[in-house]
Amino acid sequence: MEFELSDEQRLLVDSARAFATRELAPHAADWDREHHFPTEVIRRAAEQGYLALYIGEDDGGLGLSRLSASLIFEQLAAGCVATTAYMTIHTMATWMLASFADQALKDAWLPGLVSGELLASYCLTEPDAGSDAAHLRTRARRDGEHYVLDGSKCFISGAGATDVLIVMARTGEDGAKGISCFLVPADAEGVRYGRNELKMGWCAQPTRTITFENVRIPAGNRIGPEGQGFVYAMKGLDGGRINIASCSLGAAQGALEQSLRYVEERRQFGKPLAEFQSLQFKLADMLTDLTASRQMVRLAAHKLDNRHPEASLYCAMAKRFATDHCFELCNQALQLHGGYGYLNDYPLERWVRDARVHQILEGTNEIMRVIVARRLLDQGGMLDRLL
Amino acid sequence: MEFELSDEQRLLVDSARAFATRELAPHAADWDREHHFPTEVIRRAAEQGYLALYIGEDDGGLGLSRLSASLIFEQLAAGCVATTAYMTIHTMATWMLASFADQALKDAWLPGLVSGELLASYCLTEPDAGSDAAHLRTRARRDGEHYVLDGSKCFISGAGATDVLIVMARTGEDGAKGISCFLVPADAEGVRYGRNELKMGWCAQPTRTITFENVRIPAGNRIGPEGQGFVYAMKGLDGGRINIASCSLGAAQGALEQSLRYVEERRQFGKPLAEFQSLQFKLADMLTDLTASRQMVRLAAHKLDNRHPEASLYCAMAKRFATDHCFELCNQALQLHGGYGYLNDYPLERWVRDARVHQILEGTNEIMRVIVARRLLDQGGMLDRLL
Amino acid sequence: MEFELSDEQRLLVDSARAFATRELAPHAADWDREHHFPTEVIRRAAEQGYLALYIGEDDGGLGLSRLSASLIFEQLAAGCVATTAYMTIHTMATWMLASFADQALKDAWLPGLVSGELLASYCLTEPDAGSDAAHLRTRARRDGEHYVLDGSKCFISGAGATDVLIVMARTGEDGAKGISCFLVPADAEGVRYGRNELKMGWCAQPTRTITFENVRIPAGNRIGPEGQGFVYAMKGLDGGRINIASCSLGAAQGALEQSLRYVEERRQFGKPLAEFQSLQFKLADMLTDLTASRQMVRLAAHKLDNRHPEASLYCAMAKRFATDHCFELCNQALQLHGGYGYLNDYPLERWVRDARVHQILEGTNEIMRVIVARRLLDQGGMLDRLL
Amino acid sequence: MEFELSDEQRLLVDSARAFATRELAPHAADWDREHHFPTEVIRRAAEQGYLALYIGEDDGGLGLSRLSASLIFEQLAAGCVATTAYMTIHTMATWMLASFADQALKDAWLPGLVSGELLASYCLTEPDAGSDAAHLRTRARRDGEHYVLDGSKCFISGAGATDVLIVMARTGEDGAKGISCFLVPADAEGVRYGRNELKMGWCAQPTRTITFENVRIPAGNRIGPEGQGFVYAMKGLDGGRINIASCSLGAAQGALEQSLRYVEERRQFGKPLAEFQSLQFKLADMLTDLTASRQMVRLAAHKLDNRHPEASLYCAMAKRFATDHCFELCNQALQLHGGYGYLNDYPLERWVRDARVHQILEGTNEIMRVIVARRLLDQGGMLDRLL
Repeated sequence: MEFELSDEQRLLVDSARAFATRELAPHAADWDREHHFPTEVIRRAAEQGYLALYIGEDDGGLGLSRLSASLIFEQLAAGCVATTAYMTIHTMATWMLASFADQALKDAWLPGLVSGELLASYCLTEPDAGSDAAHLRTRARRDGEHYVLDGSKCFISGAGATDVLIVMARTGEDGAKGISCFLVPADAEGVRYGRNELKMGWCAQPTRTITFENVRIPAGNRIGPEGQGFVYAMKGLDGGRINIASCSLGAAQGALEQSLRYVEERRQFGKPLAEFQSLQFKLADMLTDLTASRQMVRLAAHKLDNRHPEASLYCAMAKRFATDHCFELCNQALQLHGGYGYLNDYPLERWVRDARVHQILEGTNEIMRVIVARRLLDQGGMLDRLL
Repeated sequence: MEFELSDEQRLLVDSARAFATRELAPHAADWDREHHFPTEVIRRAAEQGYLALYIGEDDGGLGLSRLSASLIFEQLAAGCVATTAYMTIHTMATWMLASFADQALKDAWLPGLVSGELLASYCLTEPDAGSDAAHLRTRARRDGEHYVLDGSKCFISGAGATDVLIVMARTGEDGAKGISCFLVPADAEGVRYGRNELKMGWCAQPTRTITFENVRIPAGNRIGPEGQGFVYAMKGLDGGRINIASCSLGAAQGALEQSLRYVEERRQFGKPLAEFQSLQFKLADMLTDLTASRQMVRLAAHKLDNRHPEASLYCAMAKRFATDHCFELCNQALQLHGGYGYLNDYPLERWVRDARVHQILEGTNEIMRVIVARRLLDQGGMLDRLL
Repeated sequence: MEFELSDEQRLLVDSARAFATRELAPHAADWDREHHFPTEVIRRAAEQGYLALYIGEDDGGLGLSRLSASLIFEQLAAGCVATTAYMTIHTMATWMLASFADQALKDAWLPGLVSGELLASYCLTEPDAGSDAAHLRTRARRDGEHYVLDGSKCFISGAGATDVLIVMARTGEDGAKGISCFLVPADAEGVRYGRNELKMGWCAQPTRTITFENVRIPAGNRIGPEGQGFVYAMKGLDGGRINIASCSLGAAQGALEQSLRYVEERRQFGKPLAEFQSLQFKLADMLTDLTASRQMVRLAAHKLDNRHPEASLYCAMAKRFATDHCFELCNQALQLHGGYGYLNDYPLERWVRDARVHQILEGTNEIMRVIVARRLLDQGGMLDRLL
Repeated sequence: MEFELSDEQRLLVDSARAFATRELAPHAADWDREHHFPTEVIRRAAEQGYLALYIGEDDGGLGLSRLSASLIFEQLAAGCVATTAYMTIHTMATWMLASFADQALKDAWLPGLVSGELLASYCLTEPDAGSDAAHLRTRARRDGEHYVLDGSKCFISGAGATDVLIVMARTGEDGAKGISCFLVPADAEGVRYGRNELKMGWCAQPTRTITFENVRIPAGNRIGPEGQGFVYAMKGLDGGRINIASCSLGAAQGALEQSLRYVEERRQFGKPLAEFQSLQFKLADMLTDLTASRQMVRLAAHKLDNRHPEASLYCAMAKRFATDHCFELCNQALQLHGGYGYLNDYPLERWVRDARVHQILEGTNEIMRVIVARRLLDQGGMLDRLL
């Protein structure tokens, strides 16, 4: 086993941190306050390859491992959680295109998505099927050389500001096996966008409901064969869970660094906060929980990189563990700042608001427990294999 | 012992709930979004006596016990946490005037504060003395028949929209014994207001820094003798802690009611959420924690009503316990709503944001622990007396 | 509302404490170590009325409220958890006889049980129906003027050392309505006892499996009509849950008192432990959780005393809350004592072992959650009624 | 990075498991009940090299990494926690001799310790200096070619049954720099042993106080130069903390495996426990916490193997995290077994009792927090280096 970053990974981390410090951190509070989606900065991120980290080099990406991508997303998120989170979702959607589409469709869309000229949204969740993706109702009806889509999707990140929609829609029977995956141009006729939802956090990225009414797309826009859509969506989510957990790591890292500065500077009762034992213990536990969260995310990324048969299990555990603990860490960092933590002048309350949704999306943390329990109970003697 | 509400208390609860349902709940989301301080509604609340619940009848108040006031604040807060919380702070400041000022000062100001014509702010915290009130630096220098105040106060609720400032300022030696309490008209010359702070929550009430530069007030505006300011401020806070904890109860009650509705209506995987055992257990624990929080608040209020020698200890325990558990309850209710919990369309995320600050203000929950531990350790055999 | 002990309750508490200090505390470690069931001391407790606290005066008991009984059990348990816990089980069984049996059966057995001449066991749980009482299989077949019992019961407290068995057995249909309640003399022919189970704690009272083979008892030994056994068993358990939770309070009270002594005496790094802030905070939270637990138990006892329609709900909440928090408190007290806490020379590790089972018996804490959730979900608008 | 076991490590794990299954697990309950220290089995373990896993091959050990040793200790502990824990303490003491003693002393004692012919105890803690090792008072006075030791040590694992005592004693000034390390034959004149302490768990190994009265040993029994004793003791403990945390992993692994079997077999309310969602979620969290604990231990072991400058920090974090979470896991596994979990017939309650002391010894978990906080606060910018 080997737990140290390689030299190359150190370099990737350093340059991601430099980008975050220069391009994201100084503006994150403004973007949050003004509900501004910084597409211009996202395009500069694309120049660094940050929109295609684990897309193969043949497809124009950096061809990095999931683990290296996680390291980079963590650093970017320490600059701006909401923006980085969107970039991970774009990446997830782009990766599905790169991995499962035929060459013609890839040729048409992939270069733009990799370069950041085009932005993508991942469209799975529906109003009546939040965690229950297999029951989704959006339909894609074959009509000659086209499909015609009807239905609606909700909680779609980036919606209204993106160019490409990766849409899971039902082409066949009930259940997971009747779902196919499509690339729908965001401006196709019949695609309608709801208002930009007002959310607790992630204010720097728009979230909208999307309605499809009689949306006609070429049959060639189907990604992979019919019936594979749910499988692709879940494969995308394995990576998506690592990514979103990485964004939580970034928030937590930022919150812990900020807390260390604060306890050194701030004095109460005649001495720096750093000298109060209860705060010292709190900081010690924060570092410990952050370290454990990081290990869980890296372990899962490694399993995914190596196509471990239980990779999905590890992704679910990592997402649950890291997003829960990192939210708690941010929340404790807020508390440690007292009244200042509650003000928008400090990043603490934003980190709390932004990290909060990571416990909910890409499968709620309750669904993560369902996934883990199912694997654990389905098979005898599994524990041996998880050493 | 007797744990049931009296018939009178039931009536008080019912009318408070009716007021909250009619006047507060329908607007709370808008006030939050628009950062609107609803002074007109607060004045309607005053007509019900809600700004002077535990002010004596001689002083124009309702003369209720702290316990009855807590029951009412809980119901109001279920309608709008931030507005109710401000009303409790107004009450705390008004109570200090009613309890400790001489008749002339009371005659001049109390009627307006009781009727809601005038609103009050409580001015204790300073930038360099958050939880460390005894080190405060705002000075009040005697100058003939006047005092001249210099210094600044921060995190002042209502500041900029209130008429009366109850200000703790140093008139003497270092430490708690050198502090006196003053009524400062909010528009006195030399009083300057900072910008309305952007906060995580409590957006329906303004929070500002106040600077006093050479602010001259009549000596008669001193509340009680010199040197008593810190004592008064702490006595005010005993009640304030019960009140703010009651606001947390209201948020938690609202969050639990909303959760019960949601699990009945919302279906996933073919059945209502209410049938999922993990959610059932969560709801059971939420009710249990809410019940325990309520008991702690009522116990403390009862101790304060009866001038129990350890009343401050009970207030500190109740504030710590109820604000921690009720925040957690709101946060779990948000989680239970999935993505909808994160949207501003539902009240969950606002309750989380609003209840969050209760763990920080009127003494952080860490300071509550300091208070409890000090009492516990200062005296042998104390535990017997706490049965 | 009124939260203070009455003068009479203070006296009851004081004499219970005196009894515990004199008769229980000095021997508790030995009884634990030697697995000794101190029947002689239990009989002295009976002289104080401690085996019949809430048995009516007409039946020879003290006729106290459940709440007063809870206060007494708490004090006794601070002396010896396991012995007091047995006494509460004896009381529960005796109360069932007093409440539901006909006069002839009461005349025959009640005086001995009240005076402590006879000891009782409560026999509900079966090997295949731990928390699932309605599925129990022990049968009582009517045979002329007798019933003949066959089946087995497990985890029976006191078994082998008691004189009277209160047995729930099936006389009719499947489910809860087919169960009846019987008094079986412990030495009846065909009653066989398993070995004294080796347990983590509660070592001062025996626990055995009981097998009934063709055990013939007079029909007059049936308590109440056929089919009421499950109802009686559950009514007994409502009180039993308050009692066992009271035993947890006693352990926690003892653990907190011992911790206060320890942190004053023990020095590390040149100062008493009492001066370390992290320990101060721990102690503050311990007192707070103990206080909240006590309130929950008293609230539930009050509801039961007043035949509140939701009394069972409150009993379940109190049992869950108090036994969880008090176990945790004992465990933290152990930790605070470092290595000494792990030694049998101090009572901490015994309190941890003894209090542990309270989370399991008289309905596991998971079953408590089932009970609470069911009430909460069964009815609309219930929350109002729980204020 | 690489998170998979190597083939060699797989083999080590498999043979350790086989040994544990054959030699430890079948007897662990008896050893616990009878307070039997199974020296004969420990010697068989030595034949496998288990007493010298990370002792260099030149010194007769297996020369494995700390990480590989951790994997083995985890497996052995799943068989018997107390016995394995003693073996890790023996290893720690032996490693100090191997690493810091001169060749003559090593020649005299090391072969016996490696082969298991001799057993060792580590003697640091004193009655008045539990976690405060630098204040220890045992003195070693130089007298010509001898040292004469006076003082006492407490909580000494194995004491009375071991042959070699590795003793930290003061030869110089106050504080850590005045301490030296000695090998004292267990049967030296003037060494006196207290009674075998009665403990909550770890009953399969004796724990005694040792008193040194005028104990004369050759000067050549000093390990390393004067003044290095505290440094050596701490270096030993870095490894010791990984080892003891590994023993917690083993207990947790055993508890989770046993729980999986139980929920499949045990039925309640007409279906297997495995179908109850609240238990499924509990199991999912147990696996997640075990996985995270394992990662923390392996990370720390890797840091120690690579002489990372912050290795002590990682060891402290791993010990705190893993021993806390694994105790909690065992305790939840006990709960899941209901009444059966409380009986000695199942291993659950023993695992709880055994794992409990890991939170206390080799530095309490509070001391772990002190260590982590000190490192975190001593240095600016440290967090970067911990990625």
